[in-house]
Amino acid sequence: MPKTDIARRVYNHTWKLDPIVRSLLDTDFYKLLMLQMIWGVYRDVDATFSLINRTTSVKLAEEIDEQELRAQLDHARTLRFSKKEMIWLAGNTFYGRKQIFEPDFLNWLENFRLPEYELYKRDGQYELHFHGRWHDTTMWEIPALAIINELRSRAALRAMGPFALDVTYARAKAKVWEKVERLRKHPEIRISDFGTRRRHSFLWQRWCVEALKEGIGQAFTGTSNVLLAMDTDLEALGTNAHELPMVVAALTKNDDELRASPYKVLEAWQKYYGGNLLIVLPDAFGTASFLRDAPDWVADWTGFRPDSAPPIEGGERIIDWWRERGRDPAEKLLIFSDGLDVDTIERAYLHFRGKVRMAFGWGTNLTNDFEDCAPDHNDALRAISLVCKVTRANGRPAVKLSDNPEKATGDKTEIARYLKVFGEEARVRQPVLV
Amino acid sequence: MPKTDIARRVYNHTWKLDPIVRSLLDTDFYKLLMLQMIWGVYRDVDATFSLINRTTSVKLAEEIDEQELRAQLDHARTLRFSKKEMIWLAGNTFYGRKQIFEPDFLNWLENFRLPEYELYKRDGQYELHFHGRWHDTTMWEIPALAIINELRSRAALRAMGPFALDVTYARAKAKVWEKVERLRKHPEIRISDFGTRRRHSFLWQRWCVEALKEGIGQAFTGTSNVLLAMDTDLEALGTNAHELPMVVAALTKNDDELRASPYKVLEAWQKYYGGNLLIVLPDAFGTASFLRDAPDWVADWTGFRPDSAPPIEGGERIIDWWRERGRDPAEKLLIFSDGLDVDTIERAYLHFRGKVRMAFGWGTNLTNDFEDCAPDHNDALRAISLVCKVTRANGRPAVKLSDNPEKATGDKTEIARYLKVFGEEARVRQPVLV
Repeated sequence: MPKTDIARRVYNHTWKLDPIVRSLLDTDFYKLLMLQMIWGVYRDVDATFSLINRTTSVKLAEEIDEQELRAQLDHARTLRFSKKEMIWLAGNTFYGRKQIFEPDFLNWLENFRLPEYELYKRDGQYELHFHGRWHDTTMWEIPALAIINELRSRAALRAMGPFALDVTYARAKAKVWEKVERLRKHPEIRISDFGTRRRHSFLWQRWCVEALKEGIGQAFTGTSNVLLAMDTDLEALGTNAHELPMVVAALTKNDDELRASPYKVLEAWQKYYGGNLLIVLPDAFGTASFLRDAPDWVADWTGFRPDSAPPIEGGERIIDWWRERGRDPAEKLLIFSDGLDVDTIERAYLHFRGKVRMAFGWGTNLTNDFEDCAPDHNDALRAISLVCKVTRANGRPAVKLSDNPEKATGDKTEIARYLKVFGEEARVRQPVLV
Repeated sequence: MPKTDIARRVYNHTWKLDPIVRSLLDTDFYKLLMLQMIWGVYRDVDATFSLINRTTSVKLAEEIDEQELRAQLDHARTLRFSKKEMIWLAGNTFYGRKQIFEPDFLNWLENFRLPEYELYKRDGQYELHFHGRWHDTTMWEIPALAIINELRSRAALRAMGPFALDVTYARAKAKVWEKVERLRKHPEIRISDFGTRRRHSFLWQRWCVEALKEGIGQAFTGTSNVLLAMDTDLEALGTNAHELPMVVAALTKNDDELRASPYKVLEAWQKYYGGNLLIVLPDAFGTASFLRDAPDWVADWTGFRPDSAPPIEGGERIIDWWRERGRDPAEKLLIFSDGLDVDTIERAYLHFRGKVRMAFGWGTNLTNDFEDCAPDHNDALRAISLVCKVTRANGRPAVKLSDNPEKATGDKTEIARYLKVFGEEARVRQPVLV
């Protein structure tokens, strides 16, 4: 038995590309749910998505080689959904429902490919934009983020010897497992992986998902990553994102339409989905105004995902609102997903236990926590706050206000107009770490 | 490129034996140094070596399968020194000296094989004895211990899934690296690996040795493991062990010869070796009597290895003695090797710094510290205090008194006689952990 597989060794040392994204299913599930609606209702809308690095101290264009980035983006553009993947999307049960994707949509999806990209450097950062139909450009969000984050990890790891790498991953594994053991104390908790976009790498996300599957068992409800859900027989989880209200708002013609737009999106959504997919994301233009102006039927939706307020304050505000509207919070669902880690998860769980149903979408601090793991170059492994946001829709600027002004995006004049329409109440500035 | 090397996979899953000891060089260097003298001076002496499990709560015969143990011992008996190994022994420089092994000895060694063993179960423990010529049986000590310790690890690991195994080793690596980072603060410290006998496994010892090599650089002076020294270009380290005074004492005909025997051994040793190999192991029959009765030339030896007293007390006692004998401790060497871990190493180092030269032989807590690493079955991975001691020489019982009565071995009547001859002063009972 030869000790070295010579062919493999030669292959490994001469390959041209180690692709980061190898499947179009390597994306978040909500992208597919939104895509079906975007394709169905907003087929002719153009939307531009743009990379935004909120961690301005990290100069991405200095850390990541442009040719490597282009090679990865180009590779992602060669991908198509495979037959196996199409069959699985058509045949799998999502959120308890068979055939959640309609045959017409799947027929279109079969020929989907990622559209072109625009890439250049400015002030040490990458300008990365995706122009075109919304139903094409929206699909870049997750692979673009995953590619940039993993290229950044690779650049940091390149300087390390085999031993430093071994210790780095050993420590990172030990760290995840400490978290697993803390979460194990709460067998009734419900946690899922929301860490695709900010992951250290694909293989590391897979390790983390498998760790949670083995480590917390029933408490682990699934992953937002569709490929990992398929490959590991987990539930694919996720609902909708800010891009829906942002684009629909950008398309409005006046302030009254703008004010009504957050609910118009929900009306469109509920024609497609029901049950646990009826989750409101209330903070696109401020949760306070959203709740104040919401039609009563919004309180009939299954739950809310407060995404830019601290979990306990954000959750309590929604519980109060359900009570005001005569609904029983104990039958409702709160999904937390903003910058969670074990501490915040545990605190929110203990606070809300018995009062409301809860689920935790654990992202960056699950799949990219390498704090103090590397013997050197630790800073270069620290996760950054990188997003890929819709910036224009049919030529109009797209805006997000958020409950946290640090998370606001968009044209300044438009932000001012939106603040006038929706009000500024209860917005609290908080540092955005990830 | 096929993803699975099918031939390797089939081979891996059908093999009969994964040998623990694969080379006769996989032993401690002092064994070879002692062997040359035993073969030269005591060629016709018989000595029996026996396994002694001082951790009686662990029932080895219940944890380790007898057939597996026999298969490993039998495999070790098939080994010969390879040509490459013989050339290296002849050509390498040890302790700054070329040709430390004489051609006659090497000619004999070339045909060496481990002698037969006697194995049976009693009261949940293994009785494992090696009878025959001292120059044959002595060579079983390290492989026998390494085999039993690794079989015990394997038995503990067998119950774990792939994920638990991954986390266990990740944690163990992270743990070693924490120790490395603490030791790095003292670049002048001198540490070597003495962990062959109690290692978790061969591969793990190799990992630990490579970790120290990369992690503390010049502060890592080498390993007692001859195979690892050869393979990783490190110094092979070690001097002599208790079996020398124990056998020589057992061969004496009366109390006066017995009293003189510890020095007779040293006289024989210094005919073979010099320099940093002139290290006194003073505690075989109690350090106090050894120092009191020592001829003056013993104070000319390079150093001492106090092996059964706490480092600081044990070291201070020897420093005082050097001063009494008019020697300058600053020119002398103390080697510490008894149950060390980072705490004790650091404390002793800071205490003796500037007063005496020091070296630390770090054993069990380097190569077998899996405390709190496994998600389950942790107890079964805890290192035990297992030794393989000479018990008879030419039919007479062999005795070790030690400075710690917990480490005494041998026939009770003989222990009483030895205590009468050497005295009991300054012996302190202390728990033996490893």
